[in-house]
Amino acid sequence: MERKDIDIKDTWDLSTIYNSHEAFYQDLEKTKSLINDLITFKGKICNSIDSFYNFLTTKDTVERLMNKLYCYAHLNCDVEPKNQEYQTMMATIMGVLEASSVQISFVDNEIIEAKDKVLEYLKDPKLEKYTYKINSLLSYEAHILPKEQEELLAKVESIADTSSQVFNALRLEYEDVEEDGKLKTLNNATLNQFLKNKDEKVRKQAYTNFFKEYQRYENVFAQTLAGVMKKDAFYADVRKFNSALEASVFDDDVPSELFFKVLESANVKYRHLFHRYNRLKKELLKKDVIYNYDLNIPLVSSINKKYTIDQCFEIINECLRPFGQDYLDIINKARNERWIDYYPTPGKRIGAYSSGSYDTNPFILMNFIGDYNSLSTMIHELGHSVHSYLSNHHQDAVNANYRIFVAEVASTVNETLLINYMIKNAKNDQEKAYFIYEQLENCVGLIFRQPMFADFEYKLHTMAENNEPLSSKVITDLYARLNQEYYGKDVTMDELVGWSCYYVPHFYYDYYVYKYTLGMTVALAIVNRILKGNQQQVTDYLNFLKSGGSKAPVELLKQAGVDPLDDQIYEDAFKYFEELLNQFETIKKNA
Amino acid sequence: MERKDIDIKDTWDLSTIYNSHEAFYQDLEKTKSLINDLITFKGKICNSIDSFYNFLTTKDTVERLMNKLYCYAHLNCDVEPKNQEYQTMMATIMGVLEASSVQISFVDNEIIEAKDKVLEYLKDPKLEKYTYKINSLLSYEAHILPKEQEELLAKVESIADTSSQVFNALRLEYEDVEEDGKLKTLNNATLNQFLKNKDEKVRKQAYTNFFKEYQRYENVFAQTLAGVMKKDAFYADVRKFNSALEASVFDDDVPSELFFKVLESANVKYRHLFHRYNRLKKELLKKDVIYNYDLNIPLVSSINKKYTIDQCFEIINECLRPFGQDYLDIINKARNERWIDYYPTPGKRIGAYSSGSYDTNPFILMNFIGDYNSLSTMIHELGHSVHSYLSNHHQDAVNANYRIFVAEVASTVNETLLINYMIKNAKNDQEKAYFIYEQLENCVGLIFRQPMFADFEYKLHTMAENNEPLSSKVITDLYARLNQEYYGKDVTMDELVGWSCYYVPHFYYDYYVYKYTLGMTVALAIVNRILKGNQQQVTDYLNFLKSGGSKAPVELLKQAGVDPLDDQIYEDAFKYFEELLNQFETIKKNA
Repeated sequence: MERKDIDIKDTWDLSTIYNSHEAFYQDLEKTKSLINDLITFKGKICNSIDSFYNFLTTKDTVERLMNKLYCYAHLNCDVEPKNQEYQTMMATIMGVLEASSVQISFVDNEIIEAKDKVLEYLKDPKLEKYTYKINSLLSYEAHILPKEQEELLAKVESIADTSSQVFNALRLEYEDVEEDGKLKTLNNATLNQFLKNKDEKVRKQAYTNFFKEYQRYENVFAQTLAGVMKKDAFYADVRKFNSALEASVFDDDVPSELFFKVLESANVKYRHLFHRYNRLKKELLKKDVIYNYDLNIPLVSSINKKYTIDQCFEIINECLRPFGQDYLDIINKARNERWIDYYPTPGKRIGAYSSGSYDTNPFILMNFIGDYNSLSTMIHELGHSVHSYLSNHHQDAVNANYRIFVAEVASTVNETLLINYMIKNAKNDQEKAYFIYEQLENCVGLIFRQPMFADFEYKLHTMAENNEPLSSKVITDLYARLNQEYYGKDVTMDELVGWSCYYVPHFYYDYYVYKYTLGMTVALAIVNRILKGNQQQVTDYLNFLKSGGSKAPVELLKQAGVDPLDDQIYEDAFKYFEELLNQFETIKKNA
Repeated sequence: MERKDIDIKDTWDLSTIYNSHEAFYQDLEKTKSLINDLITFKGKICNSIDSFYNFLTTKDTVERLMNKLYCYAHLNCDVEPKNQEYQTMMATIMGVLEASSVQISFVDNEIIEAKDKVLEYLKDPKLEKYTYKINSLLSYEAHILPKEQEELLAKVESIADTSSQVFNALRLEYEDVEEDGKLKTLNNATLNQFLKNKDEKVRKQAYTNFFKEYQRYENVFAQTLAGVMKKDAFYADVRKFNSALEASVFDDDVPSELFFKVLESANVKYRHLFHRYNRLKKELLKKDVIYNYDLNIPLVSSINKKYTIDQCFEIINECLRPFGQDYLDIINKARNERWIDYYPTPGKRIGAYSSGSYDTNPFILMNFIGDYNSLSTMIHELGHSVHSYLSNHHQDAVNANYRIFVAEVASTVNETLLINYMIKNAKNDQEKAYFIYEQLENCVGLIFRQPMFADFEYKLHTMAENNEPLSSKVITDLYARLNQEYYGKDVTMDELVGWSCYYVPHFYYDYYVYKYTLGMTVALAIVNRILKGNQQQVTDYLNFLKSGGSKAPVELLKQAGVDPLDDQIYEDAFKYFEELLNQFETIKKNA
C-alpha cells in the first residue's frame, strides 16, 4: 500500500512538531543565533556563578531546539526517504550539529579546568539540577585532551560517521521467492514469514535469496563494518581508554564487569540450555539434519490470531492495568494524538522504534501486520514512549534523557507482561504451548543471540584495536564460527550464515546489544515481583520511569528494586528459560 | 579467456620484483625492522649533520622497500583479485603503511623546528639531493601543527578514507539492453558501444538502465561523495588553508591561478566552440532534438581497423621516431621484458594504468581488444612508463617520483603524436575524417568535459567548506545544471543526467581532473614544435622526462619549453580544436 492510501489516523502526526517547513527553518535560524550567543561565553563560562548559570541555560535551549529539529527531519526521512526536501533538512541540521560541536568544543575544557569553582557553584539551589550532568563531566578529566586537540577532535566528527551513514542509506532488493507456484516479494518484513513455511524449498530459497545480496555487496558491508570498528578504536585510543569497550561503559557510567557478566552467563554457564532447546527442536521436527533456516518453523501450529490496531490497544490496556490509570491514560493518548506510524509502506524504514525529543511527543515507527509479533512490538515501543513521556514531564530537560541501559527495561517489562498475560489466558493447551513457544523464541533472541552478537562485536573491536585487517573473509568466517558454537552441534549452518552479520544494524551502535540482555534480565525480576502483587515494586518502578536520566544507570535500576551486578538475577533469568523449556517439553511430549 | 590460457609473453613478469613469496616477506620483515630504527631517531634527527643524513637515508630505504612491496601486492591483486594470498599481502602492507605513518609522525615537526640548522646542513654536498624535498617540507611550516596534534591527525588517517573505500567496493549491476531483438549485457565496458548504436531506443534504454541504478542508490553515493568533500574540507581547515583547493595546489607546488585559468578558458572564453561542435552534430545527425545520450553516435562510419600487438608496436615506433633511438629502445624493452599485461581476463581490473616503483620496472595494465582505442591507450601508458624509466635511471630515489601534473604531459604527448600520424597517413578522406573525429572527441573530453568536472568539484568543495548540506538533490541538481550550461542549448539533457556524476571515480581524487586539461594543453604546445622539426624542443622534452620530480612542476614544464601560466598555450589549444573542427566541417559538408 502506498503512503497516500493509508488512513490518516494510522499515520503519525508530525505537524505537532512543526506545522510548516517555515516553522522548521525559523527554529533553525533561532538555533544558529543562540549558538553564536554560546560562543561569546568562550573564556568566561566559569567567571561567576551567574555566567555559569546563564551559559548552562542557554546551552539547554540550544540542545532542546537541535533535538527538536533533528527529530522532525529524521522522522520524516524515515517514512519518506525519497522526499529530497526532508533529506535537505536532515543534511542541514546535521551540518549545524557538527559545526556547533566544533564551535563550542572549548566548553568541557573550561568547566573541567575550573573544577573547584564549579563544585562550589553546584551547591547553589538553582544549579542543583545540573549536579549529575556536571559531575559526570568532571569525572571525564582523565580523558579530556588539551583545548587545541579537543577542537581538532570535534572537527573529526564531520568525517567520522560515514560508515553508519552509508550503511543506513544502502537498502537492498531481493529476488522473489516461489511459494505455492507463485512468485512472492521477499523483503525484511516477509523473510520471517517465508522461514516459517513448512516447505523446505521455500525456506531455503528465501534464506538464499536474502543473504546472497549481502554476499554480493560484501566488500561494501565489510568496509562500513570495519570502518565503524576503526572509528571506535580511534576514539578510545585518542581519549586514553584501554579499549572501545572501556570507553563505551565509561560513557554509560556503568562498570565493564556488566558486559562480561552477560557474556559469561550466555556463553559459559548456561549455553547448554540453548543447545538443549535446539536438540528438542530437531527431535520435534523429526529430522536428521536441521539447518539454521529451519529454526523458525513453528513447533506449535500457529493459532493464526490476527489483531486489529484497536484490539491491540484493548489487550495492552489489560496487561498494563497493574500500573494504574495514569499509565493507561498515556497509552491511549498515543493512539488518540497519533504518536504512531503503523503500517509498512514502500521505502519506509524497517523495524520499529520509539523516538522523540523533550519538546515533542514521543513517536513510534512500526511495520504493523497484525500478528502477535506486531502486538508485542507495539507494547514494547509504548514502553519506551511512556518512559519518555513520564521522564519529560517529571524531569528538567537536562535530566530527562535516559540511557539505552535503562530504556530496554521499560520496553521489556511491558513485553513480558504481555506474554505472561497471553500464557495465563490461553484457551487451551495448544494456545498455551504457542505462547510459551513465543516466549522461548523471544528469550533465545535476548539472552542467547544478543550475547552472541556482543561476543562478535567484542572480537571485531579487539581486532580493529590491534590493527588487524578486517576483510570480508575474516568477518564472515568469524561470524559463521560463532553461530556454530552458540547454536550447538545439532544445528547445521547454511553456507551463507557468515554473511548474515551484514544485516544487523546494531553493530554500528558501539556495544549496544548486550544492553538488551541486561534489560530482559532486569525486566524479568521486576515483572516477577509485580505479578506477585508487590505494590511497592509498582511504585518503585513508576518512580524509576519518572527519573529519566537523573542518575547513573545502576543507581536508577537499584531504585527500581534490582541490582544489575547481582549474579542472582542472571541465574533467575536462565532458570526462567529452563522452566519454560520444561513446561513446553512436557506439553509437546504429552500431545 | 581465462588467465591461464593467455600466452605468457602477453602477461607481465612480476617475478622480476620478487621471485618468491618468501622474498616478499623477507623484505617486509626488513622494512618493519628499519621502521623501528627510524623510531630511535625520535628527538635526535637534527642533532648533527650525520644524524640528519643517516635518518634521511634510512627513511629513503624504508620508502623504497614499502613502494616495492606495495607494487608487488597491488599489481598481483589487480589481475588476480580472488587470490587470497595476494589480498593478505595487500592488507599487510597497507597495515604497515598506516602504522608507520603514526609511528613516525614526529619527523616533519622535528625537521621544521630545526629549520636554521637544517638549511645549514643542506649546504653539504652529500645532502644536495635532498634540497627540493626538504625545502618543500620547510615551506610547510605554516601548516604543520604541534607534535601532539600531528600525532592525533596521523591517527585520523585510519578512519578518513571510508568514502573512497566504499565507493570502490560498490559495484552495480544493470538490467540488460535489447539490441536486434536480443537481450545483451550492460556494464561499464558495453555502455559506450550501446551509446553508439544507430537505434535511438537502444541508446535511450542503455542510458536509462545504466544511470537509474545510480539513482536507486543515490543516497549511498551522495553520502560517499559528500564524505570525501567533507574530508578534504577537514584537512584544509585543520592545516590552516583557506580551502581544499589551496591545500591541493600547495601539495602540488603550483599556484592556484592555474586551476582558474583552466576553468576560465573552458568556461568563459572558448565554450562557444564546444557549443558550435554540438550544433554541428545536431545538423549532421539531421535531428530536431538531440539528447545527451545521442552525442556518441559516430559521425563518421567506423573504419573498423584492427591491430595486433606487434602492429601496435610498429606504429608506435614510427610515431615516436622523433625522440630518437634511446627512447625507442625503452619501448621495445617494455615488450621484450614483459612490462605489459595486455588482455582482459575475468576479474581483472578495468581500464589501464602504468605503475611501478623505483626498484622495479614500470608495469602497464591494459584491457587490449585490438581497436584504435587499444592502440592509443598503449602509446599513452608507454608514455608514463618511459617517463618513469628515464626518471628512475637519471634521478636519485628521493627525486625520481613525479607528480600527476607533469605525468599527464608525457602520456598525452605520445597520444597526440599518434593521432597526428594517423591523420597525416590516412589513405582517404573517410579515414582522415575518422581520425579527426576521434581527436575532436578526445579534445572534448580533455579540454571541455574535464573542466566541467573541475567546476562541479570546486562547487561541491566550496559547499562542504561552508557546511552547506550536500544531499543527493543538491548534488544532482547542480550536476544537471552544469551539464546543460557546458553542452549548450542544442543538446537536450536526459532527466537522469544529474545522477551520472555518481559514476565518476575522479571526484574522489581531490582536484585531479583539471590536470588532464593542463597536460593536454602543454602536450599540444610541445608536439606542435616537435613536428615542426624543432630539435631543441626534443632535447628539452627528453631532459624533462629525465628530471622526474626534482623540481616544482612549473619549473619542470618551463624546462620542457612550456610555461603553463602563459595564456598563449590555452589560446593555441582551443585554436587547435577550432582548426580541427573547421577541417572536419569542410570534409563532412563536401562529402
